[in-house]
Amino acid sequence: MIHTDLCIIGAGPVGLFAVFEAGLLKMRCHLIDALPQVGGQLSEIYPQKPIYDIPGYPEVNAQDLVDNLMEQAKPFSPTFTLGERVDHLAKQEDGSFILTTSDKTKIHAQVIVIAGGLGCFEPRKPVVENLELFEGKGITYMVKNPETFRDKNVILAGGGDSALDWTIFLSKVAKRVTLVHRNETFRGAPDSASKVFDLANKGKIDLILSANLKGVSGNGVLDTVTFTDKNKEEIKIGADYLIPLFGLSPKLGPIADWGLSIDKNAIEVDTRDYSTGVDRIYAIGDINTYPGKLKLILCGFHEAAIMMHSAFKYVYPDQKLSFKYTTVNGVNSF
Amino acid sequence: MIHTDLCIIGAGPVGLFAVFEAGLLKMRCHLIDALPQVGGQLSEIYPQKPIYDIPGYPEVNAQDLVDNLMEQAKPFSPTFTLGERVDHLAKQEDGSFILTTSDKTKIHAQVIVIAGGLGCFEPRKPVVENLELFEGKGITYMVKNPETFRDKNVILAGGGDSALDWTIFLSKVAKRVTLVHRNETFRGAPDSASKVFDLANKGKIDLILSANLKGVSGNGVLDTVTFTDKNKEEIKIGADYLIPLFGLSPKLGPIADWGLSIDKNAIEVDTRDYSTGVDRIYAIGDINTYPGKLKLILCGFHEAAIMMHSAFKYVYPDQKLSFKYTTVNGVNSF
Repeated sequence: MIHTDLCIIGAGPVGLFAVFEAGLLKMRCHLIDALPQVGGQLSEIYPQKPIYDIPGYPEVNAQDLVDNLMEQAKPFSPTFTLGERVDHLAKQEDGSFILTTSDKTKIHAQVIVIAGGLGCFEPRKPVVENLELFEGKGITYMVKNPETFRDKNVILAGGGDSALDWTIFLSKVAKRVTLVHRNETFRGAPDSASKVFDLANKGKIDLILSANLKGVSGNGVLDTVTFTDKNKEEIKIGADYLIPLFGLSPKLGPIADWGLSIDKNAIEVDTRDYSTGVDRIYAIGDINTYPGKLKLILCGFHEAAIMMHSAFKYVYPDQKLSFKYTTVNGVNSF
Repeated sequence: MIHTDLCIIGAGPVGLFAVFEAGLLKMRCHLIDALPQVGGQLSEIYPQKPIYDIPGYPEVNAQDLVDNLMEQAKPFSPTFTLGERVDHLAKQEDGSFILTTSDKTKIHAQVIVIAGGLGCFEPRKPVVENLELFEGKGITYMVKNPETFRDKNVILAGGGDSALDWTIFLSKVAKRVTLVHRNETFRGAPDSASKVFDLANKGKIDLILSANLKGVSGNGVLDTVTFTDKNKEEIKIGADYLIPLFGLSPKLGPIADWGLSIDKNAIEVDTRDYSTGVDRIYAIGDINTYPGKLKLILCGFHEAAIMMHSAFKYVYPDQKLSFKYTTVNGVNSF
């Protein structure tokens, strides 16, 4: 069991900054994210894109912002459970919570902060018969650990940055990589696309364009993947792994069942402290809603700061919050 | 007469970021500040101090943050009236305003945004008889233009960064600089203090320590300044200028008379859009108050973003606001 003052669900930019604001008030944080790395949408969807509306940054690369937020949180030694989804919440008699993840990790916390962005991102799955039969048995929607694919035959499907980046990376790890895409051109970065074409020209990978995923088969574990090409001809490829990378689709997930007030996939909060209707549960960033809400990272930063001053009373019920400006006192690490 | 969409009172960090947020919605801004430069408290009080709680900056020098905010606002070409104080507000028949400054500059605006920080900073004045008689006639509390002091005899009084920095600077401009301070040590940066001692040792300036300002005299214009030293002996020094730099004290100023709802020197706002009770007047940053308010720069950034979406209807009454993320569309300058 992991013990912490605050459990933050979502390790995107707002969740990371919340660690800093909690730390200034001497509260410790543990973060859970369904993605295998911190940074939320920034790291997962557009790590190399510039962002223009972070105050004080005329332009900042999304991944750089995440790195800076990690650096800023560092004095307060946050801990992480990544690549696991929050599944269950149990209220304890003393008001605290025990959270359980999809991998049965248990976290005991005084306060829950939902900083889940657009929700727990779920991979967009292709519509193919029997897909579920092979999930975890050859079909995976996320590369958590590239070593899993060492010396294996791997098929990637998709045309965005994730598909291109993992094709390039896994070409050095897997026995054979095949990238299948339904179009002739890629949506991802032109530079990555040209690297992929180059690898295909040199025979380092197999590239199949204008083809659609049609079926999967195997005896208990994945064995063969079937595609149709532009002439509707079937192509069968033997594979140990199929990784469909068709992007992520936001889902509120099991949080929807916690008795929170939900409006259009977002959690309604009180703007005085961004508390939800449920005692000791707060929601900040893109996942919350209130009159006038803007889904901007900078608004989540503000919500994180305000929220922590409210949560203090649950972590230190006998203390009066005395707030000192960092310009006066600096940042004192744990 | 200057014409603008929004007139922002206060060119501190929040006022500057408001220009960027307004710009994204195609609204133009003019900023007024009583200080002679942009940056508010950051540039005036602690330009070389590090700030630790700007999201995404583990540490940033206050002046660097101001410079970055200016750079971020640049695509939207803000205009400025600096070193002038807002004196008068006149509501026009069509709902717009005409603002008049202390120097009689007139600005016509559809919307007023008060981003005045802790209020219009007023210099702390020494308690000395007849001081007012020489204000503007040899006594000044602010260095607007150093050239004013070229080849003049100048006395500076104070022990903080402003007194040290201007002593160093004016030693190269004025005929003779005398720095008078009531203690033996300085409050300002140690590096600046040692530069000042060095200048005094080399005979480049006169340094009088443990002395208190006692009196001022002259025939219409300042002529002589009197101090008492630690033995209560009087010291008389002839001077063209006396610049007492005893810090700034916050004052709400004439804004207090605009019919706004004021609570303890702060303007009460509606957290849905940070509007004041008066139509078309908003207040953001340290100058506003609401339940749960934290006086943090990052909170002002959020308030600026939210506020602009509300002000849009006054600038473009016939248009529907269509909001596009900068990650998708970039920043399109005026």
